[in-house]
Amino acid sequence: MEDKKYAADIESITKAHALIKPYVHRTPVLSSETLNSMAGKTLFFKCECFQKGGAFKFRGASNAIFSLDEEQAAKGVVTHSSGNHAAALALAAKLRGIPAYVVVPKTAPKCKIENVKRYGGQVIPSETNMQSRQETANKLLHETGAVLIPSSNDARIISGQGTVSLEFLDQVPQLDTLIVPISGGGLASGVAIGAKSINPAIRVLAAEPKGADDAAQSKASGRLITLRQTNTIADGLRASLGDLTWPIVRDFVDDIIIVEDKEIIQAMRYCYEILKVAIEPSGAIGLAAVLSDKFKQNPVWKDSRNIGIVFSGGNVDLGCYARSCFPLEESNDKKSGS
Amino acid sequence: MEDKKYAADIESITKAHALIKPYVHRTPVLSSETLNSMAGKTLFFKCECFQKGGAFKFRGASNAIFSLDEEQAAKGVVTHSSGNHAAALALAAKLRGIPAYVVVPKTAPKCKIENVKRYGGQVIPSETNMQSRQETANKLLHETGAVLIPSSNDARIISGQGTVSLEFLDQVPQLDTLIVPISGGGLASGVAIGAKSINPAIRVLAAEPKGADDAAQSKASGRLITLRQTNTIADGLRASLGDLTWPIVRDFVDDIIIVEDKEIIQAMRYCYEILKVAIEPSGAIGLAAVLSDKFKQNPVWKDSRNIGIVFSGGNVDLGCYARSCFPLEESNDKKSGS
Repeated sequence: MEDKKYAADIESITKAHALIKPYVHRTPVLSSETLNSMAGKTLFFKCECFQKGGAFKFRGASNAIFSLDEEQAAKGVVTHSSGNHAAALALAAKLRGIPAYVVVPKTAPKCKIENVKRYGGQVIPSETNMQSRQETANKLLHETGAVLIPSSNDARIISGQGTVSLEFLDQVPQLDTLIVPISGGGLASGVAIGAKSINPAIRVLAAEPKGADDAAQSKASGRLITLRQTNTIADGLRASLGDLTWPIVRDFVDDIIIVEDKEIIQAMRYCYEILKVAIEPSGAIGLAAVLSDKFKQNPVWKDSRNIGIVFSGGNVDLGCYARSCFPLEESNDKKSGS
Repeated sequence: MEDKKYAADIESITKAHALIKPYVHRTPVLSSETLNSMAGKTLFFKCECFQKGGAFKFRGASNAIFSLDEEQAAKGVVTHSSGNHAAALALAAKLRGIPAYVVVPKTAPKCKIENVKRYGGQVIPSETNMQSRQETANKLLHETGAVLIPSSNDARIISGQGTVSLEFLDQVPQLDTLIVPISGGGLASGVAIGAKSINPAIRVLAAEPKGADDAAQSKASGRLITLRQTNTIADGLRASLGDLTWPIVRDFVDDIIIVEDKEIIQAMRYCYEILKVAIEPSGAIGLAAVLSDKFKQNPVWKDSRNIGIVFSGGNVDLGCYARSCFPLEESNDKKSGS
């Protein structure tokens, strides 16, 4: 990639799409008049929560796994991840018949760890801090000779996640705006570069939780900023941009919108009650963004009409979900007196 | 219909499809390797929970509403329903710009009543028993001159629900078996007559909760049996067959499988956790059926390979859902010791 300005381009994304097509679901696009009315826009939801492994992460993971040569592949792959990338990598490795070693922080949601195990991944627990995760991963790499597949900051991953944009624009050609969650930036950068290569006029907004707003800070300051601590219900959005994703986010993502956790929780409820879709907090942030006053009152986004929102994942513990959503329901019940 | 043996046929279903196409969602079909492994079959899920109004009921309601002549339509429509048909009728009436009067038993789930109101339907509460519901409806019909649109036992409704089969077989032509929930029989009879007209070799299994097994009793005895009382978590499956749906169920539905409430609850959990789809109990019964020992051990269904399951609806209160599912989760947690 030395001679290229960015880690991915439309060629690498198109190539990734051809490579992973036999393995990934072409996920459906849902819509709802009720949510359109609430947003004052026409919304289209690309349901990557229905992707294999329950998240878009399977696209990047498949691209990474199936582009390894035989010798590399035989030794297996290693990653450390808060969950969805881990499950996706385990599943893709299983399909190729190679081992996947997954370093998972002890605090990851139970359902995400279960997903890794269900797909045959070997779970190696670590402490939650990044240092412990990296040390554990390095030890594994040394012992096994396996290949490290990072969750976001990797050319193969960025191109794989970018395939979401090819499908989405094929399914809904009239899209003028895309809203995607941003964390490590694999999805946001892949989608931005893919979508703008197909339609240079399309605008891409990345949505980030207030308690993990490194991308917003980076965009505002013009340099890559990494946070030491994060605090958000959106466990999938706690990662930071890296040296490969940051330049693409800087140059291709039009803006970052910051969303409050309570807006995310409300959006999860709407997904469940109106769309009948189970969404994890990270997955619901795009809907939270488009329904926020901040978005509605921003003059830049006023002329967006057909907005595509990527529902990035659906791996949420029933228990977590109930704890997140029920306090709201109880207070609503009290207010309405019913 | 005097000169016809059945209330619907492929012509009436095809006509309904053309009439309602501008209004209904062509709902997506989902699949899951995990559920395929559990069933030992290849499963396809037609997600009518994503239909407008959250259930397949909008198909029949649209067909009924849009086939009224101008004079009839102007006076509006009346129904009494446990919920999904009511919401669907309200929505279809709103689209045509005519009033919908909906008699709803006081015990109907809150979210179903809210759906009726959200779509502009006029909710008239009644007692839960059928006599009170019918008397309240008759009073309304007399006062308004509106047209009664029953929830199932109606030629327009049966043809409308039958459009599910046209779409499903178009989306997945290799289907050899269909599993549908059965209650009043509108969906089961419409789908059975539609699917068998397209592919006479296809087999149709209707799934019914143990606490409301009037269809199974009717099939077994060869005559229409109506229950006085029902007892099941599947609030949408408490209705009985009628004089129009029964002959079609008798002659076109291959068999009825009886499902326990606990199997339905487990299937709801699988929908949520594996497919990321919010399903009401009635909607999950097809998955419960295909995963049951009763189905797996039945020699008649052994050679079914590609099974289409209709997820009929997704209108479930978060509160009901948690109460149904959490006891199971707690006991699982204890068993696994995690």
